Amino acid sequence: MAFATSNSGGDANNHGGETNLTVPNVKLQSLTHLTDYMPGLKTQPNPLDNSPFFHPISEFYISSSDVIMSNVIHDLSGEFSSPRPHLAYHRAGPRKTIYFDPGQVRAAIVTCGGLCPGMNTVIRELVVGLWEQYGVREIYGIRAGYRGFYSFEPLKLTPKMVHNWHKKGGTVLETSRGGFDLQQIVDSIQHHAFNQLYIIGGDGTMRGMVKICEEIKKRKLNIAVAGLPKTVDNDVGIIDRSFGFQTAVEMAQQAISAAHTEAESAVNGVGLVKLMGRSTGHIVLHATLSSRDVDCCLIPEIDFYLEGKGGLFEFVESRLKNIGHVVLVVAEGAGQDVIPKTGDQSHVQEKDESGNPVFLDVGGWLKTELKNWWKREHPEELITIKYIDPTYMIRAVPANATDNLYCTLIAHSTIHGAMAGYTGFVCGPINGNYGYIPVDEVAQAKNRVDVKNHKWAWVRSVTNQPDFVRCSDSTGK
Amino acid sequence: MAFATSNSGGDANNHGGETNLTVPNVKLQSLTHLTDYMPGLKTQPNPLDNSPFFHPISEFYISSSDVIMSNVIHDLSGEFSSPRPHLAYHRAGPRKTIYFDPGQVRAAIVTCGGLCPGMNTVIRELVVGLWEQYGVREIYGIRAGYRGFYSFEPLKLTPKMVHNWHKKGGTVLETSRGGFDLQQIVDSIQHHAFNQLYIIGGDGTMRGMVKICEEIKKRKLNIAVAGLPKTVDNDVGIIDRSFGFQTAVEMAQQAISAAHTEAESAVNGVGLVKLMGRSTGHIVLHATLSSRDVDCCLIPEIDFYLEGKGGLFEFVESRLKNIGHVVLVVAEGAGQDVIPKTGDQSHVQEKDESGNPVFLDVGGWLKTELKNWWKREHPEELITIKYIDPTYMIRAVPANATDNLYCTLIAHSTIHGAMAGYTGFVCGPINGNYGYIPVDEVAQAKNRVDVKNHKWAWVRSVTNQPDFVRCSDSTGK
Amino acid sequence: MAFATSNSGGDANNHGGETNLTVPNVKLQSLTHLTDYMPGLKTQPNPLDNSPFFHPISEFYISSSDVIMSNVIHDLSGEFSSPRPHLAYHRAGPRKTIYFDPGQVRAAIVTCGGLCPGMNTVIRELVVGLWEQYGVREIYGIRAGYRGFYSFEPLKLTPKMVHNWHKKGGTVLETSRGGFDLQQIVDSIQHHAFNQLYIIGGDGTMRGMVKICEEIKKRKLNIAVAGLPKTVDNDVGIIDRSFGFQTAVEMAQQAISAAHTEAESAVNGVGLVKLMGRSTGHIVLHATLSSRDVDCCLIPEIDFYLEGKGGLFEFVESRLKNIGHVVLVVAEGAGQDVIPKTGDQSHVQEKDESGNPVFLDVGGWLKTELKNWWKREHPEELITIKYIDPTYMIRAVPANATDNLYCTLIAHSTIHGAMAGYTGFVCGPINGNYGYIPVDEVAQAKNRVDVKNHKWAWVRSVTNQPDFVRCSDSTGK
Amino acid sequence: MAFATSNSGGDANNHGGETNLTVPNVKLQSLTHLTDYMPGLKTQPNPLDNSPFFHPISEFYISSSDVIMSNVIHDLSGEFSSPRPHLAYHRAGPRKTIYFDPGQVRAAIVTCGGLCPGMNTVIRELVVGLWEQYGVREIYGIRAGYRGFYSFEPLKLTPKMVHNWHKKGGTVLETSRGGFDLQQIVDSIQHHAFNQLYIIGGDGTMRGMVKICEEIKKRKLNIAVAGLPKTVDNDVGIIDRSFGFQTAVEMAQQAISAAHTEAESAVNGVGLVKLMGRSTGHIVLHATLSSRDVDCCLIPEIDFYLEGKGGLFEFVESRLKNIGHVVLVVAEGAGQDVIPKTGDQSHVQEKDESGNPVFLDVGGWLKTELKNWWKREHPEELITIKYIDPTYMIRAVPANATDNLYCTLIAHSTIHGAMAGYTGFVCGPINGNYGYIPVDEVAQAKNRVDVKNHKWAWVRSVTNQPDFVRCSDSTGK
Repeated sequence: MAFATSNSGGDANNHGGETNLTVPNVKLQSLTHLTDYMPGLKTQPNPLDNSPFFHPISEFYISSSDVIMSNVIHDLSGEFSSPRPHLAYHRAGPRKTIYFDPGQVRAAIVTCGGLCPGMNTVIRELVVGLWEQYGVREIYGIRAGYRGFYSFEPLKLTPKMVHNWHKKGGTVLETSRGGFDLQQIVDSIQHHAFNQLYIIGGDGTMRGMVKICEEIKKRKLNIAVAGLPKTVDNDVGIIDRSFGFQTAVEMAQQAISAAHTEAESAVNGVGLVKLMGRSTGHIVLHATLSSRDVDCCLIPEIDFYLEGKGGLFEFVESRLKNIGHVVLVVAEGAGQDVIPKTGDQSHVQEKDESGNPVFLDVGGWLKTELKNWWKREHPEELITIKYIDPTYMIRAVPANATDNLYCTLIAHSTIHGAMAGYTGFVCGPINGNYGYIPVDEVAQAKNRVDVKNHKWAWVRSVTNQPDFVRCSDSTGK
Repeated sequence: MAFATSNSGGDANNHGGETNLTVPNVKLQSLTHLTDYMPGLKTQPNPLDNSPFFHPISEFYISSSDVIMSNVIHDLSGEFSSPRPHLAYHRAGPRKTIYFDPGQVRAAIVTCGGLCPGMNTVIRELVVGLWEQYGVREIYGIRAGYRGFYSFEPLKLTPKMVHNWHKKGGTVLETSRGGFDLQQIVDSIQHHAFNQLYIIGGDGTMRGMVKICEEIKKRKLNIAVAGLPKTVDNDVGIIDRSFGFQTAVEMAQQAISAAHTEAESAVNGVGLVKLMGRSTGHIVLHATLSSRDVDCCLIPEIDFYLEGKGGLFEFVESRLKNIGHVVLVVAEGAGQDVIPKTGDQSHVQEKDESGNPVFLDVGGWLKTELKNWWKREHPEELITIKYIDPTYMIRAVPANATDNLYCTLIAHSTIHGAMAGYTGFVCGPINGNYGYIPVDEVAQAKNRVDVKNHKWAWVRSVTNQPDFVRCSDSTGK
Repeated sequence: MAFATSNSGGDANNHGGETNLTVPNVKLQSLTHLTDYMPGLKTQPNPLDNSPFFHPISEFYISSSDVIMSNVIHDLSGEFSSPRPHLAYHRAGPRKTIYFDPGQVRAAIVTCGGLCPGMNTVIRELVVGLWEQYGVREIYGIRAGYRGFYSFEPLKLTPKMVHNWHKKGGTVLETSRGGFDLQQIVDSIQHHAFNQLYIIGGDGTMRGMVKICEEIKKRKLNIAVAGLPKTVDNDVGIIDRSFGFQTAVEMAQQAISAAHTEAESAVNGVGLVKLMGRSTGHIVLHATLSSRDVDCCLIPEIDFYLEGKGGLFEFVESRLKNIGHVVLVVAEGAGQDVIPKTGDQSHVQEKDESGNPVFLDVGGWLKTELKNWWKREHPEELITIKYIDPTYMIRAVPANATDNLYCTLIAHSTIHGAMAGYTGFVCGPINGNYGYIPVDEVAQAKNRVDVKNHKWAWVRSVTNQPDFVRCSDSTGK
Repeated sequence: MAFATSNSGGDANNHGGETNLTVPNVKLQSLTHLTDYMPGLKTQPNPLDNSPFFHPISEFYISSSDVIMSNVIHDLSGEFSSPRPHLAYHRAGPRKTIYFDPGQVRAAIVTCGGLCPGMNTVIRELVVGLWEQYGVREIYGIRAGYRGFYSFEPLKLTPKMVHNWHKKGGTVLETSRGGFDLQQIVDSIQHHAFNQLYIIGGDGTMRGMVKICEEIKKRKLNIAVAGLPKTVDNDVGIIDRSFGFQTAVEMAQQAISAAHTEAESAVNGVGLVKLMGRSTGHIVLHATLSSRDVDCCLIPEIDFYLEGKGGLFEFVESRLKNIGHVVLVVAEGAGQDVIPKTGDQSHVQEKDESGNPVFLDVGGWLKTELKNWWKREHPEELITIKYIDPTYMIRAVPANATDNLYCTLIAHSTIHGAMAGYTGFVCGPINGNYGYIPVDEVAQAKNRVDVKNHKWAWVRSVTNQPDFVRCSDSTGK
């Protein structure tokens, strides 16, 4: 054998040819397989073998030695020959060996957390893919997020029902935050005899999924659990981007354009837009680079301050003086450290039902502060500040073509993984190719804007905005 | 002569055939003409006489006896034969006799108040129409509303400059509220030797225009002043509708659709949209009837109450119980009487710079009240309320095709009126035809939703919403 | 009694107070009423009497003496006092007296001819209006146009089924041309015991409806037949405009904009767009005035010629020389007289299944002719001609908000007329108000572009296009 | 030194530290550098060193040893350890060492070939990037493609001029096909003293660029030539995708949706859409997978036949029988081998001015053939075929947000390469990262749909369409 196995030890071959392999210097992120804790599990005949669409068979199946390299960028002057192993992920796609008899599959699909363009497309494609490609007939939707497992009856889904769902925003299955009661959930899964779970949600949901997988393993249940990462913020690590993100950036252009028009149509006009982004500024960054109408953007990854040299207001003042108007775009999670908590707000519930911190309204705060500062500094001069919060108009729309295709591919890829007996994995694009990632890895990784790379430098050069970090640093902050 | 003159007395023929006439039972709303106070004003050769496009001449000119009837609906059983006169307006369009030498015209265009789709189209068409049709070469834009007359230098406008303005939202000339200083404005008009003013604005602006006309008359200046009513709320009386309104209703669908999606995607989901409408509910009414996704709409023309039998919350509760979600749309001017003014708010500045009352945020108030009420009444049940205020995203867009055509026709119609020597008039569609209306009449008329006609009954039958008025009446409120 | 009855003779009062009346000089277009040939027909209790939404009753009902004047524009100098009567139409709306017991109503809805935005909205609102307002429960859709009466089983419709139809283009009921077999249709109507017919179609369809009404009258059947004029071309007379027209104009902007971009992006770029308009140029006219990107438009109402002085090619050449590009928009029915029929084409079937003439492709012909002419005249110079035919992309979209509201109002208005016992009528807006019009009047009236009025002059002045008529006249053609 | 150099031999270090390096088993695609044939060329101070936006410097510069791996997918069971080298490309981005003094740069930008969304964004960003980031002040647009070099005066470009170009479709610089006269072009470049060329075009344009580079090298001119691949078909090899492609797929949904609506609204309704794709079916493939309304798609990569078992018409017939309607989407380059050339067409000019073959109209042909076949086979039954060719409406629109960002990044990346002294290179995304590729490699590589991979299998499973290849093979065709 040409290369040593790793991670899963010497008995890597124990589940029907699904082996986690590495070449020297390649570390393959191993996936949990149902046979890991259910050694007697039998392989099943694969309907794809006879599908006219996956013919000739041999060319379509992905093997367990097909991998995607995590890193495609290298510095040949050193790192490449270093002893540090190159990370790789299992490639997604249909496996020759499957561990489910489609006639026995009872699949459950659940959507959790906030809305995101494409959720209905993912649901539709899971249903259509399971039904058309593998012949699964028992597919259920869980209503309203995790709590739906134990609060509502599952809804039987068919291709006919979901036929046009990809043209709708939101999620027909409904969603909610919180409601994660591990025992009740797994009890309900057993009660309904589900043996495939498809969980669509964000990082909180994925952390819940980790616990579900552990409990299922503990109970030694033959249930494959697959995650489809959903975050309009695009803050999930490892994967290239999450579904709905491109649509959200597209829609954000409308709000920015309106803010720009309002600003241009006034004397000393300020357009202020708050966009989504709890811990990351991806939407703000992409929307700014796409639109070119933004003068300054504020994201959670950078600190900023309002008054004084190099501060935001000095920048605004300078733009108004020179150009007559200014457009600011701020991520909802930006500036949380600098917004003063008043007496009243200090008693505010600090977490929402998903356990996410409840944000102070950075947009409203900026508007008020700017207005008051201007009145003090320029009592004789007009200022017109128009504040737009387009959040729900951005996230409640149907996915655009780019995202619809993404949702289709991710759903089908995920099905193949579950049918192959993988569990506790998440599917997503890695360097342009769909791969399977251990869910605990995804639940922890965070995709933040790298404020030291070119994109951010370009944003700054495009907007000419102050480098708050540097200025504040130099003042000894 | 077949019928008696009226209104303007026996010397109605003194300005070149422009006579305000009435037939028996027809009362023609007379317009002010420059010759009314400048009797010696000379007629001028009309460039349209030689225009290849207005040929043969005789068929295109509108005469002063061409009128539009104000009322097209009659009850033949009585009213028609009554002695009450039928109101009529001068029809808009090119006049054979004009009182301006195009080579001597110095036209000024100003936009006042809030943004409205189509403002740039109106400006563009005024410029193109004056230039192309009459050969006027001195056309100026006044920046930033009324204050621009005395605060900024006028901007020379040419067809080339304005070529693509109709594809932009907002107003390239900029706008502002307030700044109405009568003497400074008229002084500036004289200083710049403007002799045609085109004023684009809402009812506040029109009241200012009335004063400008009086002052100009007092000073006996040869200046034609024409108004183009701009109100996204569609609250101007007499005219069929104002420009930008159709676009606003179209855009409002996006917000309603998003609210509907958010509501449908949650357990006990409530979508709440605040739309424009300071004193009228036209946008809410039209958006509701077009969209069909709205369960209840609240407009300034009706009172409503929250709690108790027949109240809003009872309705919401019933919808959530039966359908699982509810969509509410509220006009910004609704409910101002029932929103409690807290200690802090009582000191709030009560008028904005246009003199309009500053509204309490009915949307935010409803959201909070509903949330609190639900917690009290249903402490165990989830509720999800998503509140959308799409105001700027609705009003800052370019006009749609319907409104663009409207803007084109109104601008050209207005030019013809000014060239013909009319002043103190406003142009707008009356029963589908463009007419000239005395500005003081427009400044006072208010177009409110008639809550006793069919459209409102239809809204109620569509939404099945409570008749707050009746219920509260019956409880002796 | 204050005025003489007309039209329907001395026994006009025989159907429950529905009288066709005239005042002196007012000619009211009388409608056929079921009691005209079924004298014993009984009135029925009106559910609206008890509707909470039409309360208080007295103010909502429309009486038979409520009329809309056909003409709102008058020349006070003569016509108004002339002995020629003023035409009036019955106003649409709920009647106090109805002739159908909702529990006995069996309504059928059929869509005929080509697609038009809003068809599904009309169907939806007919279903919802009959069901919600009057309590009708037997509502059927006829599939695929007139032939559907005898070729397919009717489809039972409920509010739940049609709930989202207004968001879809096309017609869920399907449509077709032709298939008009009078006896089979009326036999089928009797067979299914339908007593209310709602027919959605164009002028051909309306001519069929006239025959159906005659046959029903002949057979003395108690069946109310109502028409809802559908023509994306807006070529129906009497009414202000037809539904779907505003949406079509909006969508046409996309095609014009693309043609403009193609033309501007090339050396000697020509953008050529063919729009709908069999016998009228309304879409072309409105799209041109809204877009302002069009240099010349060709409509069926005017003749044109290609070569020679004052011809189209001279105009194109001049524009290319001066501006570098040119955009032409042509209605499909334009130029049919000047397109040469080649040997092959002469044997082409001259009528489609609706009996409409099959048009020669004026767009393709223009493209070829222009290209060949240019090659002859300017062999050294490039020309780039891009031809766009967006027909199906314009007509297959959902209605915009403006048209959706129109469809809602027209559907409800039509229901009220049928319930009131009127038959053989069509509903549409007349001077901004909905009225009932005898179907034979509508079937004959044609709304053509008046090339002698201002709008057309404006188009010409906007585009500066040649007056082909005049030029060709002067050359003695 | 840790690894051997390759490709450029032992003197790789001769241009200021820019060395093409390889590690063992890595083959780095070497780029031509101006110093390759101008050994004395001096490095210049880099304005980015002092840019506040690229600070701290050290982290932003890309070195010549930074590479992108061409292949991220590996089969660990064999290939990875094979002796075949892994292909790598230089990573794009700002270089510390530059070879142009910005004050001496005279840059020329030219757009060639057909329109594609994003061309104006690329131009805008080249201008803004050169101006803002490096301080270049002499930037010129070449009108109308290659012929513009010698036929028109260059147009001076400034950031102010191009400010809003990214919101416009097409190319403000104009474009054309053909006109490639090598000597005249290079003479003109010398005449105008351009020393940076930015060429935006497709594969034909890139082949022209190869010749220009050779000629420039032959004349030993200090001119950096950079290409930005533009192809709405997405048929350029090596790079992930080309700009404008996502926008085109988005717009194609409109046409497919219209075709679907037309098909659903008729008895035996057939919607037929022709999309762009001369030699590749990418747009068809992506539009189909995104829309899900397509029943069968035909692309250049697969053969198909109409009649007989397993043929297209059998498929259409079966769909009409079972579902009642069918939607077909065909790429313009599909079926060119099976369309019969009639006597007339055989004399048709076989190449357009770019040297591309002129396609037979596969859409029109399919429509006619299907209609005739149906008449023969089903003389009694209706069929309705609606054919849509949305080409210009797809390609003449502004880029969407996704493509606008792409255009921004590619333009800036390209500038950095040119400033660094690279020439004869093309910039594009490789596995999600921007890299520089030798132009001759790009000019030859073709990105075709791999009909043996999963995406195509998915299309077939989605549409259930026949496998024409297999069937025809089995019949011994």
